[in-house]
Amino acid sequence: MEEILQGDERLDYLLAEDLRIIQSPSVFSFSLDAVLLAKFAYVPLRSGNIVDLCAGNGAIPLFLSARTNAVITAVELQGRLANMAERSVHYNGLQERIHVLNDDVIGIAKKIGYEKYDTVTCNPPYFLSNEASEKNMLEHIAIARHEIHLTLEQAVQSASELLKQGGKAAFVHRPGRLLDIITAMRANRLEPKRIRFVYPKEGKDANTLLIEGTKDGKPDLKVLPPLYVYGSDNKYTEEVRLLLYGQDA
Amino acid sequence: MEEILQGDERLDYLLAEDLRIIQSPSVFSFSLDAVLLAKFAYVPLRSGNIVDLCAGNGAIPLFLSARTNAVITAVELQGRLANMAERSVHYNGLQERIHVLNDDVIGIAKKIGYEKYDTVTCNPPYFLSNEASEKNMLEHIAIARHEIHLTLEQAVQSASELLKQGGKAAFVHRPGRLLDIITAMRANRLEPKRIRFVYPKEGKDANTLLIEGTKDGKPDLKVLPPLYVYGSDNKYTEEVRLLLYGQDA
Repeated sequence: MEEILQGDERLDYLLAEDLRIIQSPSVFSFSLDAVLLAKFAYVPLRSGNIVDLCAGNGAIPLFLSARTNAVITAVELQGRLANMAERSVHYNGLQERIHVLNDDVIGIAKKIGYEKYDTVTCNPPYFLSNEASEKNMLEHIAIARHEIHLTLEQAVQSASELLKQGGKAAFVHRPGRLLDIITAMRANRLEPKRIRFVYPKEGKDANTLLIEGTKDGKPDLKVLPPLYVYGSDNKYTEEVRLLLYGQDA
Repeated sequence: MEEILQGDERLDYLLAEDLRIIQSPSVFSFSLDAVLLAKFAYVPLRSGNIVDLCAGNGAIPLFLSARTNAVITAVELQGRLANMAERSVHYNGLQERIHVLNDDVIGIAKKIGYEKYDTVTCNPPYFLSNEASEKNMLEHIAIARHEIHLTLEQAVQSASELLKQGGKAAFVHRPGRLLDIITAMRANRLEPKRIRFVYPKEGKDANTLLIEGTKDGKPDLKVLPPLYVYGSDNKYTEEVRLLLYGQDA
């Protein structure tokens, strides 16, 4: 076991999927947003091709692998994170179904193919690169969280380039960027079709946005029921427990 | 009493506001959406100037009059509805505070003044004029419900023309038009700041959208807690009962 872990890494258990994932508190750990996006996104069930952009340590590809037999390509710019993802994929014996690419999301379709994919998921960097006050100065986390190497518009463009007509792109972001993400999606032939807002608890403003669009789809937007993370008892709601811990939660 | 009513009109009671309103099942009755918008919109409390566009039988101006001492101008294209609104205003003795204009929303700022108003509210026609299947063929209702004489873009433009810098425009619409309303608002210098989705009940998709923007405001969108209309018992929720029937509901 020890040889697959480096430095302060640990092997965490993804209960609902019965998989393991390598994480590191100092380098990168996945957030609840990755869980939410992986469950929100439409995926082809039996076959097909999926790309996860900004894959980090591979959490979303691992989650998706429990929902679909499609082949999943994980694209991550940071070598350290791509390496963690690669080792997690091998540890779970999923190397036939998840391919990790240590590459730039910008221009990725030129390398892996235009209009060949059914689904693209993306949990992009959330903060504008000039939001210095919120910036985490640990370099790996800064790149993963801020639009230093990738703007929202660039992420949306790459997603669109990868997708077949009728293919679906799903993003998770902050509600404050709703207008930007919608604008970027429409500018890139991704028609928003489903939005779900995530609220930390009842009575609070939404703090997370899930949005899915269809390439060259017809306008027909649905706003799904809200998702609450915590109940009035400050514990995860049943819906979130089910996402995190599975059917037997 | 009878002489103020015409045809099948009746005098309904606005419980929360302790006001009366003239309605007609065959011509026009206000909907819950009008109630929701009137409570959602920011209003200057002690003084100032408000315009309600597409005022119908004056429900929103009447609701707002209970929340503010500002002067409210109600603009309604249809003479029959403007006349109902006018009679309701007089019946309630509010003619000093609510002015009813039987006029077109398009170009209204040219007549009543550019950039002079603090708040504009608008419950515009919801359906595209080509949505014939949903079209109610009673003429008054058709005009009030469909974009026959006024498109969403034209309503947003008029709202923007009326507003001072920093003034607020609040709209109620269908979630399916979220992208169009946001696009129209940004194209007309109204930066969306607050959105609230209204759900018929838990577990259902949203069926109503409340959105407010600030003229020349900075981007900073908040998505407020959801509003549910009916509880699992199929009765109005406490929040909606309070809006409709007031504190003592």
